[in-house]
Amino acid sequence: MSLAEDLYPSRIKNTPEVLPRVDEVVHSRWNAAAPISKAQTEAFERDGFLLIKDVFSGHEVATLQQEARRLQSAPPEIDFDTVITEPKSSAVRSVFKIHEQSAVFERIAADARLADIARFFLDDDVYIHQSRLNYKPGFRGEDFYWHSDFETWHVEDGMPRMRAVSMSVLLSENTTLNGPTMFVPGSHREFIACVGETPDEHYKQSLKKQEFGVPDEKIVDGLVAEQGIATPTGPAGSVVIFDCNTLHGSNSNITPYSRSNAFFVFNAVSNRLTAPFNGLAPRPDFVAARGGASKQYSVSDNFSNVA
Amino acid sequence: MSLAEDLYPSRIKNTPEVLPRVDEVVHSRWNAAAPISKAQTEAFERDGFLLIKDVFSGHEVATLQQEARRLQSAPPEIDFDTVITEPKSSAVRSVFKIHEQSAVFERIAADARLADIARFFLDDDVYIHQSRLNYKPGFRGEDFYWHSDFETWHVEDGMPRMRAVSMSVLLSENTTLNGPTMFVPGSHREFIACVGETPDEHYKQSLKKQEFGVPDEKIVDGLVAEQGIATPTGPAGSVVIFDCNTLHGSNSNITPYSRSNAFFVFNAVSNRLTAPFNGLAPRPDFVAARGGASKQYSVSDNFSNVA
Repeated sequence: MSLAEDLYPSRIKNTPEVLPRVDEVVHSRWNAAAPISKAQTEAFERDGFLLIKDVFSGHEVATLQQEARRLQSAPPEIDFDTVITEPKSSAVRSVFKIHEQSAVFERIAADARLADIARFFLDDDVYIHQSRLNYKPGFRGEDFYWHSDFETWHVEDGMPRMRAVSMSVLLSENTTLNGPTMFVPGSHREFIACVGETPDEHYKQSLKKQEFGVPDEKIVDGLVAEQGIATPTGPAGSVVIFDCNTLHGSNSNITPYSRSNAFFVFNAVSNRLTAPFNGLAPRPDFVAARGGASKQYSVSDNFSNVA
Repeated sequence: MSLAEDLYPSRIKNTPEVLPRVDEVVHSRWNAAAPISKAQTEAFERDGFLLIKDVFSGHEVATLQQEARRLQSAPPEIDFDTVITEPKSSAVRSVFKIHEQSAVFERIAADARLADIARFFLDDDVYIHQSRLNYKPGFRGEDFYWHSDFETWHVEDGMPRMRAVSMSVLLSENTTLNGPTMFVPGSHREFIACVGETPDEHYKQSLKKQEFGVPDEKIVDGLVAEQGIATPTGPAGSVVIFDCNTLHGSNSNITPYSRSNAFFVFNAVSNRLTAPFNGLAPRPDFVAARGGASKQYSVSDNFSNVA
């Protein structure tokens, strides 16, 4: 692993600070051949997230939901380490590495409707840095505090630059009441350096409940005062795309409506992981793919052709 | 205390059950002299709750907010027992008995815009069974699981019948995202008997986090499947009125927007408390007023005349 320059130092100082983003948000220039409209590209660049409704058909959604239920029951062929439960119960909260543990989700990750947009936004070939099935149960879904994914991926995984994009395929309707992801529009344009050091093997806890890499309350307050909070809501089959550095979180869910999505992080191949910037051992591969482990997508096909 | 007949037995059996409501919802017949419209009366009867926007003026709201901040700082003249903190921090979640500990909130409780509606709905003179200031902080406001207030007031406090009405005066804007109260419309028309027994001095925990008197998940699921979930949202100065038996709860709040309200429960004087139906010692007076302790409102005046 090379010793890359740390352009986004975090969890080093005792006081939080806001650093400028030195990377582009949309790395390509829009043109008529782009897989997404100019207005959508501009909205993503401005807000740091984008909702696209009805990307997947009812038939495709049914296939994905069935596969999600299967994985959620943690069948024996699934690596036990990749199954994460709720902090206070044994309910399954996430199953990681679904693009390698499920043929169905492998096809979805490579689907042109996702991977082409990722390649366009990042102006590079891409690979899956992380994938997971998220399940927020009804009645007892826990909240997830504000965070930038990139802050963690940089500090704990060694992702050098902001050149990764996340896509959440909604497998159930997201309403304002069942604990949907909330975004702070525009927050992706600055880097919030967090205070403190990362303890060793932090990931075992942080996948359940974040305690380090937590952005300062006053900084979040200021960003929200300026930009507000947006909650993309929509039916199953919609896709929420968001920049790796957009501040997001979710409230708990006591409604009976569970919420599930399949989550894929596309990283530019030029932005492959180096040694973690906190100097600790890297997190396991199912959380952050390293080296040649992950398939590279340069030409993708369409899930609906086979589903 | 008399031994009243237990029309709503709960926390006795090992299986939950749904019992019919034997009491009226609106105990008066609407007529042109009513302090509320016929449509509003019908909506309350049907849904078990009613939102009335802009009941209090901007000037009145400012006065109430100032007084709320003062009480929230737990000044020395406030009874320490009436101050309840969040389960995981020392942040003030509620201050009880505000109609006796604050001249400002005493006037609000007696205000015609609240007390007249209570008298009309209950067809009786009324008194304050419970009052409190609720404060759900930004960033770390905890959720509150589904419950019927009446279930607790009946079992733990000895409230014989469903002839009480709650009024929440919003002191900050309630949006869908800052953990507003969610109601199950129509749920007030049935009584969900809960399982298990109440432990002694349960109130010390239950005011923070409910663990007993919790309605069965399948029953809540069924009610929500039929009726959905409603979230009255509105600006400060609005009032949410709800029947003592309407199922309600709230999600957590990680947004920076704190949420506060002044909460008053009006009980019919004919429905004064008897011995608790669980056979245990009654909860303290600041949670459930007994006997002659509480002022009776038969003619009320208007807060705005003096504020």
